Amino acid sequence: MDFHKRLRRLDEILAEKGLDGALLLCPENVFYMTGAPFIAGSPDTLLYLKRGGAASLIVWSRDYEETAEKVKCAELERLAVGEKPIDRLRKVLGSDKRVGFEEGYMSLNSYKGFGKFMDLVPLEGSVEKMRQVKDAEEVAVIEKAQGITDRAFAKAIGRLKEGMTELEAASELEYFLRREGGSSYSFDTIVASGHRAVYPHGMPGDKRAQGGEAVIFDCGVRVDGYCSDMTRTIFFGKPRGEIMKIYSAVRLAQEGAIAAAKPGVSGRELDAVARKIIGDLGYAKFFVHGLGHGVGLAIHEGPFVSALSQDIIVEGNIVTDEPGIYISGLGAVRIEDMLLITERGCRDLTKSYKEITIV
Amino acid sequence: MDFHKRLRRLDEILAEKGLDGALLLCPENVFYMTGAPFIAGSPDTLLYLKRGGAASLIVWSRDYEETAEKVKCAELERLAVGEKPIDRLRKVLGSDKRVGFEEGYMSLNSYKGFGKFMDLVPLEGSVEKMRQVKDAEEVAVIEKAQGITDRAFAKAIGRLKEGMTELEAASELEYFLRREGGSSYSFDTIVASGHRAVYPHGMPGDKRAQGGEAVIFDCGVRVDGYCSDMTRTIFFGKPRGEIMKIYSAVRLAQEGAIAAAKPGVSGRELDAVARKIIGDLGYAKFFVHGLGHGVGLAIHEGPFVSALSQDIIVEGNIVTDEPGIYISGLGAVRIEDMLLITERGCRDLTKSYKEITIV
Repeated sequence: MDFHKRLRRLDEILAEKGLDGALLLCPENVFYMTGAPFIAGSPDTLLYLKRGGAASLIVWSRDYEETAEKVKCAELERLAVGEKPIDRLRKVLGSDKRVGFEEGYMSLNSYKGFGKFMDLVPLEGSVEKMRQVKDAEEVAVIEKAQGITDRAFAKAIGRLKEGMTELEAASELEYFLRREGGSSYSFDTIVASGHRAVYPHGMPGDKRAQGGEAVIFDCGVRVDGYCSDMTRTIFFGKPRGEIMKIYSAVRLAQEGAIAAAKPGVSGRELDAVARKIIGDLGYAKFFVHGLGHGVGLAIHEGPFVSALSQDIIVEGNIVTDEPGIYISGLGAVRIEDMLLITERGCRDLTKSYKEITIV
Repeated sequence: MDFHKRLRRLDEILAEKGLDGALLLCPENVFYMTGAPFIAGSPDTLLYLKRGGAASLIVWSRDYEETAEKVKCAELERLAVGEKPIDRLRKVLGSDKRVGFEEGYMSLNSYKGFGKFMDLVPLEGSVEKMRQVKDAEEVAVIEKAQGITDRAFAKAIGRLKEGMTELEAASELEYFLRREGGSSYSFDTIVASGHRAVYPHGMPGDKRAQGGEAVIFDCGVRVDGYCSDMTRTIFFGKPRGEIMKIYSAVRLAQEGAIAAAKPGVSGRELDAVARKIIGDLGYAKFFVHGLGHGVGLAIHEGPFVSALSQDIIVEGNIVTDEPGIYISGLGAVRIEDMLLITERGCRDLTKSYKEITIV
């Protein structure tokens, strides 16, 4: 990844905003700028970029070895056991005063703590916006992650059987996600069957999947920090009529959105395309979430594709397209691909089969 | 879980602080108070507790079914597709003005947004402090999660072989973690071998584990929202002399801390007990992280057990005891149990074998 280029871009933003430097805490942002190893959601390493381009990483002692091996574009400030990051940061700051920060990430407590010795100025999502447009290397890594997901899902299907519990099905799927090379999961794998499939975040449990129930599998892996995200719905036993109609409706909506996805369309408009198809088929009130979201170092990031979104889709975005219909007592279907927005349309990064599948 | 009791306690805090209500966003806190289903780190459902005890959950449409099934102690405010939570919150607030909030969790952006129509007053970690003392039901659930982890690890050991890759080893372990009943993982499973074991957060990769290398396995599952957390280090092939000494040193430190853990000890003192044992054996500078942390709905929560901690350990805390020694080029060992602090000492919730294990 071209970390120097990203740091230069952030330095330009510092100049535009008249800032002495930028303090980044969000682990995904710190990784994006430097390649420092990260655990999603676990703020460990601080990045301070001084105007002019000197980058410093304040690293806990335990993370030093791995960070030193991976980071070439920043000075490492290794904390001693018992030393506070904020004390080291003061030294790194020198006389710098006006410092950009992540106002959508930093807690009020941290804001007050850091604010004691610097003037914190919102970066207004600058880094998050850079992250929304993927370069060729990022696309390649995300395609690799999705390739692992596709191959693992195909292999797992061969081991799924009617009457299995959701947990047993999850164990088979994750076994292959690991074997194919997933270094971690993008999020908690969802396996939800029959009436439980109406829970969009249903964690697998002891329930058996059988009697033609629709079973939602929603999963992804990380490769080099980047996420894949895919949903397929398959049937355990021969499905009844209504759920087959729902499957067709979701598939039509999902493919309608693929046809409509291109630069210049708003997240709200793209959501409306899928929502109209589902509405025309009579299921409007059962499509109870947004159509999709950006994917990258975070599993959910901009641009968002929903009725509430104010984002415009541009070339280089990678967004999910995941309509769903959820009917209490009957069941649910969701189908999800990742779309790379290209110059004139999009390329579907997800290769898994979408025909009706019965095990 | 006794959600009514927890809500009553928070209501008392509102009275003490002279607040009209409390707004909770942190998913672990919302679950703790109501049982609303949550994804760790993913803020979905808002809880507003009005002084006097009326609790309202503002729920996205997609989460409504599952929340309605599980929550009995709060009114549900179901958002329409396209409706903003903040607009619904304004209606729920009525004339309430002075509202407690989670100052260690809420971002500056959210603070400014909510602050437009209420006076936000820090809750000073009240809910997080309640969560640190586990009741009997919480202990039982965490023991169940650890029991799953113990059984899965024992079964996985039977499938591990010298020459396997870290990813293959992870696939075997997670297969059994699922089969034994883990509804999700507490965190990304760590499998790190040989020189890679010096990365405390090492994600499994293609590296083969062999030639007597020490391999760190750090894993846990969630049951009903609550986490387990365990580390074992096992050898792939017959280990050489120095790494065996390190193993003994870590084990002594880990057991020294078990003997010292009791109410009234500070997190800093308990850390120092283990650190002294490792220091006396000549490895002080290789123990590069704190001894442990609280575990519950979050994998890392208070009380913290480290040189920087200002926490005092009390009865009902569940803390990890996880010393480690990491030597560049040689390898690393970490051993971790979860300790329940009892009236006069502690009870080790982790039953997995700690003798030297060679596969």
